[in-house]
Amino acid sequence: MRAVWLENQVLSFREDVPVPELLKGEALVKVRLAGICGTDLELVKGYYPYCGIPGHEFVGEVVQAPAAPRRIGQRVVGDINIACGECADCLASRHGHCKNRRVLGIKNHDGAFADYLSLPLQNLIPIPETVSDAAAVFTEPLAAALQIQQQIQIRDIDNVLVIGAGRLGQLIARTLASVAGQLTVVARHPSQQVLLTAHDIDWIQEDGIRDRSFDIVIEATGSPAGFAMARQAVRPRGTIVLKSTYTDTNGAKWPFQFSSLVVDEITLVGSRCGPMAAALDQLEKKQLDPTGLIEKRYFLNDALAAFEHAAAPGALKILFQMTP
Amino acid sequence: MRAVWLENQVLSFREDVPVPELLKGEALVKVRLAGICGTDLELVKGYYPYCGIPGHEFVGEVVQAPAAPRRIGQRVVGDINIACGECADCLASRHGHCKNRRVLGIKNHDGAFADYLSLPLQNLIPIPETVSDAAAVFTEPLAAALQIQQQIQIRDIDNVLVIGAGRLGQLIARTLASVAGQLTVVARHPSQQVLLTAHDIDWIQEDGIRDRSFDIVIEATGSPAGFAMARQAVRPRGTIVLKSTYTDTNGAKWPFQFSSLVVDEITLVGSRCGPMAAALDQLEKKQLDPTGLIEKRYFLNDALAAFEHAAAPGALKILFQMTP
Repeated sequence: MRAVWLENQVLSFREDVPVPELLKGEALVKVRLAGICGTDLELVKGYYPYCGIPGHEFVGEVVQAPAAPRRIGQRVVGDINIACGECADCLASRHGHCKNRRVLGIKNHDGAFADYLSLPLQNLIPIPETVSDAAAVFTEPLAAALQIQQQIQIRDIDNVLVIGAGRLGQLIARTLASVAGQLTVVARHPSQQVLLTAHDIDWIQEDGIRDRSFDIVIEATGSPAGFAMARQAVRPRGTIVLKSTYTDTNGAKWPFQFSSLVVDEITLVGSRCGPMAAALDQLEKKQLDPTGLIEKRYFLNDALAAFEHAAAPGALKILFQMTP
Repeated sequence: MRAVWLENQVLSFREDVPVPELLKGEALVKVRLAGICGTDLELVKGYYPYCGIPGHEFVGEVVQAPAAPRRIGQRVVGDINIACGECADCLASRHGHCKNRRVLGIKNHDGAFADYLSLPLQNLIPIPETVSDAAAVFTEPLAAALQIQQQIQIRDIDNVLVIGAGRLGQLIARTLASVAGQLTVVARHPSQQVLLTAHDIDWIQEDGIRDRSFDIVIEATGSPAGFAMARQAVRPRGTIVLKSTYTDTNGAKWPFQFSSLVVDEITLVGSRCGPMAAALDQLEKKQLDPTGLIEKRYFLNDALAAFEHAAAPGALKILFQMTP
């Protein structure tokens, strides 16, 4: 089959990759659309030593399902964490934190930038008929955005700042627009600013942030500079949500004065994958239409151009489309 | 009056320090007992460039109160934060986080290791008759311990680890013993272990901590090593409460990989001063008797010996007693 291949931080397009062999309980999914995410770009930079097919945001169709043949033909999205089901975290219903987990396109399991992928049947979630492929491909990042509200309570008196107006920042802003008392997004690029304005969301430039004035700050840039900005912007007893990982090369570790968190009684919340079903539900109810975030579609054989485009400053969502 | 004096990180005992002059709304308090806290030791190490009389844990008696003469004779403890009442934090009822605050014995306001101190009347809280001086002198650190439960919910199914069994760690452990499902304290020194055992609280040595196995970890050592231990001990989606500041000289800043908080969805909560009235209430109801934590009492003229004693590994509470 055709696939994008990542090895030693080098991406290539291949036509001779074997179709995944199914393990017990797995289904084979024919990929229709797949999105490039910040994590994919970080894998290329060496954030994690992954070798194989990247990609974890997808919409596909079940084409083989030995344990549940009736699911063949189903249009699905997928939970990307493949848990062992037996460790302490699995037994405590924290499958996404299973120590032994494989992660679609990220860790020990080939991903979605290919004609086919495999996932356990229980990871595959049917897409409601009225949700288009183009909307459904945002289920995974939308779920990640919704995870914030699973972890902290955001009230209609809260003044919330989102730092970063890229792919994830835009989704986060839209999920919070109707929840927060006041919402402001730090947006650097004109295209990001235009999108926010179109959705009636206030934005500011980096130098417009007032120190110690936001109840809740969502850091969605994945840069140490974004973190520093969040720390300055949050008020005493406020909360910073870390919604993005930091790459190995330039910013994996940096010196931080933890005492300042104590003195100002700041809460830091790490936030990762979220509830896929809730995200699909929002898409079905049209509470949010993410398709305006699509910047361009590429075919798999244009993988290098697609990744380069996705890495450009201010780029929004870049998709792979498997067939014309 | 007599006072302990700190200047350029050098402590001295003086007999010629003027009695504090009262500002509007302030009262003069004759100090009866005062406790040495970790923060006092850190001030000596240079954690904050403080010059003046240290000390912020005290019991005293109101001897002058021009704005409320009826309070003369009252036995009191005091909220240590002197807020401006006008900044954004004060207006939002976060007086303890007032940007312009002075702090008794810590910042721009002389403290309790003296015959007299001054504080605004509104900072002074009467001590119930049945609470002894020896118990009441723990009101401030007990409030700090109770602050944890103001910030996070601890449930009877939670497995809680307290790292550090010194003065503050012991108080924290006692406030949590009846709240947490399971409670374990990391205790290094035999005297600390004996105290915990006497209160039916489980303790372990540092090398006995199981990785990723505690729902909530309270870091009360103020050392980077304690923080590293907390990070290892907490489970995914668990909470670390930072209950101690880190000194400037050896550990103010250290490199940290923030991505790991995102991947494991850890919550970090900085925690500082707490509710004084709630602490007095617990003392009045005898829910907790802290007096067993008193290791020795010194007179002011023995200040250097008292500080040295308080800084010894495993030392519990050292008090200054003003009169024989």
